[in-house]
Amino acid sequence: MQFSTLGERDSLDTRDITGDVAEAVRASGLSDGIVTVFVAGSTGALATVEFEGGLKKDLKAMLDRLVPRAIPYAHDEAWHDGNGHSHIRASLLGASLTVPFNDKRLALGTWQQIAFIELDVHSRKRELVLQIIGE
Amino acid sequence: MQFSTLGERDSLDTRDITGDVAEAVRASGLSDGIVTVFVAGSTGALATVEFEGGLKKDLKAMLDRLVPRAIPYAHDEAWHDGNGHSHIRASLLGASLTVPFNDKRLALGTWQQIAFIELDVHSRKRELVLQIIGE
Amino acid sequence: MQFSTLGERDSLDTRDITGDVAEAVRASGLSDGIVTVFVAGSTGALATVEFEGGLKKDLKAMLDRLVPRAIPYAHDEAWHDGNGHSHIRASLLGASLTVPFNDKRLALGTWQQIAFIELDVHSRKRELVLQIIGE
Repeated sequence: MQFSTLGERDSLDTRDITGDVAEAVRASGLSDGIVTVFVAGSTGALATVEFEGGLKKDLKAMLDRLVPRAIPYAHDEAWHDGNGHSHIRASLLGASLTVPFNDKRLALGTWQQIAFIELDVHSRKRELVLQIIGE
Repeated sequence: MQFSTLGERDSLDTRDITGDVAEAVRASGLSDGIVTVFVAGSTGALATVEFEGGLKKDLKAMLDRLVPRAIPYAHDEAWHDGNGHSHIRASLLGASLTVPFNDKRLALGTWQQIAFIELDVHSRKRELVLQIIGE
Repeated sequence: MQFSTLGERDSLDTRDITGDVAEAVRASGLSDGIVTVFVAGSTGALATVEFEGGLKKDLKAMLDRLVPRAIPYAHDEAWHDGNGHSHIRASLLGASLTVPFNDKRLALGTWQQIAFIELDVHSRKRELVLQIIGE
């Protein structure tokens, strides 16, 4: 699946992709198995989260605290991309997420969604790869 | 698999689920493959760890340091759950873990266990989903 | 796959294993599926990263900041290994990584590699388990 994102602003561009993943599972015709979602790129990440406005702010606050933008990064000194923190945040959160499904339904909790998190500093066209395996 | 947990106290309610996962793999009759363990819920997490008392304390100390309970969370302001930090900790550690097995045995190191980590502030009934794929 | 690593020094011993994983996928004869890479051990981790010198330094700086070596660890008090921080870093980053492949090629971004990160304090012989599933 592909979509466009905005870069880092006052908020993170965080996207609820649960519906897209659920639809891909249904379309596969498989009943039970796993779906792996993967970010093809090194400045975006995936996480499960209760997708509501408060936690989106809290997620950004946590990343700002742990991997601040305004400290020196050797990556930026070498490449002048200004996105060293984006790379490190992505490695910390992870680019791969595997979710089981049963009877064609994702095994998520009631208040649990799958989120793509844009961590780069400028607009991007994103490609997520979904691989579904089961029977 | 289902079990009950205590909420956050002086220690985290951390559970060694290696035996349960290993037994599910044996019961599947499969010889080689992967098992995905997934927390259906947004305030619990999974990790591999040498499961001993010292590291359980160190894991809690790390989470207290990186994602403190006693700072404001937008989630708590909106929902008054008092568990904003639980959600953020869960997204950071991750709700999904995939472990290979060969000859019906999990490919874990000698001092490596699979742990469920309760991050919520009150007692919970937890549901972990195990999906085993192989041949 | 097995290899030897150095322990923690001024830099982390970080290894680009993308080529090895890609070769294992090709050798499997499978066209489409997923490969799970797993560290059999509790003081090493996996991540996707743009594998270049700057980010290797930035990754170490992040870990030094979030999980410092020079603070007390209950693990070290009990076991005197001096690697409590190595264990906690490993649980934080994760020992398992699942990557899709299509037409026998890993679905990585152009600047995205798979890295093993040695987090222990002394030289190790490492074993990574690769499990490939698909059709």
